[in-house]
Amino acid sequence: MTVLILTCQQDVTTDMVVAKLHERGVPLVRFDPADLPGEAAMSAEYVSGDFHGFLKSEGRMVSMSGLRSVWVRRPGEPAANAPEPSEWLTAESSQALYGMLYSTTARWMNHPCVSAQARCKPWQLRLAHRSGFAVPPTLITTFPRVARQFAAQYRDIVVKSASGPPTSDPPIALPTTRIGPDTDFSDVAAGPTILQRFIAKRADIRLTCVGGRLFAARKEADSDQVDGRYGTDGQMWEPTQTPERVAQAVREYMGLAGLAYGAFDFAEDEEGVWWFLECNQGGQFGFIELETGQPIAEAVASWLASTGA
Amino acid sequence: MTVLILTCQQDVTTDMVVAKLHERGVPLVRFDPADLPGEAAMSAEYVSGDFHGFLKSEGRMVSMSGLRSVWVRRPGEPAANAPEPSEWLTAESSQALYGMLYSTTARWMNHPCVSAQARCKPWQLRLAHRSGFAVPPTLITTFPRVARQFAAQYRDIVVKSASGPPTSDPPIALPTTRIGPDTDFSDVAAGPTILQRFIAKRADIRLTCVGGRLFAARKEADSDQVDGRYGTDGQMWEPTQTPERVAQAVREYMGLAGLAYGAFDFAEDEEGVWWFLECNQGGQFGFIELETGQPIAEAVASWLASTGA
Repeated sequence: MTVLILTCQQDVTTDMVVAKLHERGVPLVRFDPADLPGEAAMSAEYVSGDFHGFLKSEGRMVSMSGLRSVWVRRPGEPAANAPEPSEWLTAESSQALYGMLYSTTARWMNHPCVSAQARCKPWQLRLAHRSGFAVPPTLITTFPRVARQFAAQYRDIVVKSASGPPTSDPPIALPTTRIGPDTDFSDVAAGPTILQRFIAKRADIRLTCVGGRLFAARKEADSDQVDGRYGTDGQMWEPTQTPERVAQAVREYMGLAGLAYGAFDFAEDEEGVWWFLECNQGGQFGFIELETGQPIAEAVASWLASTGA
Repeated sequence: MTVLILTCQQDVTTDMVVAKLHERGVPLVRFDPADLPGEAAMSAEYVSGDFHGFLKSEGRMVSMSGLRSVWVRRPGEPAANAPEPSEWLTAESSQALYGMLYSTTARWMNHPCVSAQARCKPWQLRLAHRSGFAVPPTLITTFPRVARQFAAQYRDIVVKSASGPPTSDPPIALPTTRIGPDTDFSDVAAGPTILQRFIAKRADIRLTCVGGRLFAARKEADSDQVDGRYGTDGQMWEPTQTPERVAQAVREYMGLAGLAYGAFDFAEDEEGVWWFLECNQGGQFGFIELETGQPIAEAVASWLASTGA
């Protein structure tokens, strides 16, 4: 039974998991959808109620009937590396590849259709409420008047992007930014804007959930630091205990969202409360493992290698 | 309780359903995501476990707490009509709009994440097998050798596209085409290709499923006609009875796929067997209703207006 890893060529995080799968002697194939068609090939036959499919990549054949699990890491767009790429070829190749993979009984970390919903930040907030997390008051709006009211009520707020920074060359940094009630909100009408009550935090928390296993890491922060992703303050990530209430909420959230993997970001306030900021279904874990020594790659490998539900 | 219809401006099929909802006195709002931000506006607030959201379109406000159902008809791409459109604004607006809509308790016809999977043709074939339909032997491949073997085995086959014709101006017609075993299959390597055993049919069947209600229509065909969408033969669509075995398979398929609406295409062979060709989760029904008089728009309106599961 083979593990299929959908990712691009340069991916150190995948290398970490591949090493763990090799240690266990679990067969695996690394496959970039961008290489189909061209370097890679596929075939699926539906005859008399049976389904037989296989992928060919780097000279190796993977039978769909022998597929144990699929890890959707950083897959390229289908047909992106084809000799004659086109939007249509991408659409055709995407249908063929994912249609075949969806036809298998493999376990997914995470299924692309589940991820599509899990990526939606406003929906994350709703689900986080329902799962029992503390969630900072948040507004997503195109109404300048509503934005002004929110700012007047909570005074100390942050503004952030829903979808991340624009893809541009060179890349644009778009850190979460702290603003006050006197900000000019008229441009909110030009694009939906997320405003959130500022949490004065004493630490950032990154909790990585792999199947049922939780790895929480903590990094001390200045109370007026806003976006832990930008600017280094010399602090390191350290392993920390997950409060039982948070652990329950994480499991509830993962179940409701249908996720096998999720990277949760929290702000820990002065009272020790962990405030839910977001759950990234495709979040990185390499940097956490390197600093904390937490065996996250091993947990991912273990989940991919297992056959249970 | 309001019905939200996501569609573009020009959409006769929507007009038909809107008329039926008006007859019932059900409040509705027609909304094109392309108009957000700009003509349309939105706001969602997540505070203390509560969620309050609203959409504004054509001067009307729709509260998310009063949302009964969402019909995803032909929505434009978010922000496509914005004063300054960009990929990033589309990503931000899509997150904001769909994230808010996913946060509601509204029923979906069909949920976009469900549709994403339901669109995959190879997966449709697998699900059709499992649901109990007769499915013609089918191959999707990039291997010329495998294509040749399939053609040699079944002799009389058709070739078709997985994702439909390329989007181009002027549009390209890409009808399903009948080919023989002597075809040159070398170009299969350039893009995944669907080959299917040709079904000598005496009729085309279009079965529209709306919630639990089935509307089957039949159109006589010459046995050597291949693609009923192209070329008019003077035949009309007429209502027909659905065989019980097919009705069961349709319900099974809809349940497994999580669909509330689906348009099934079958080929009826000389023995009267209905061969599953595909299920289009967003398929048209206007032309069927006009020719058969089947009350499909009424069924869609009824489903959207009801509050039950």
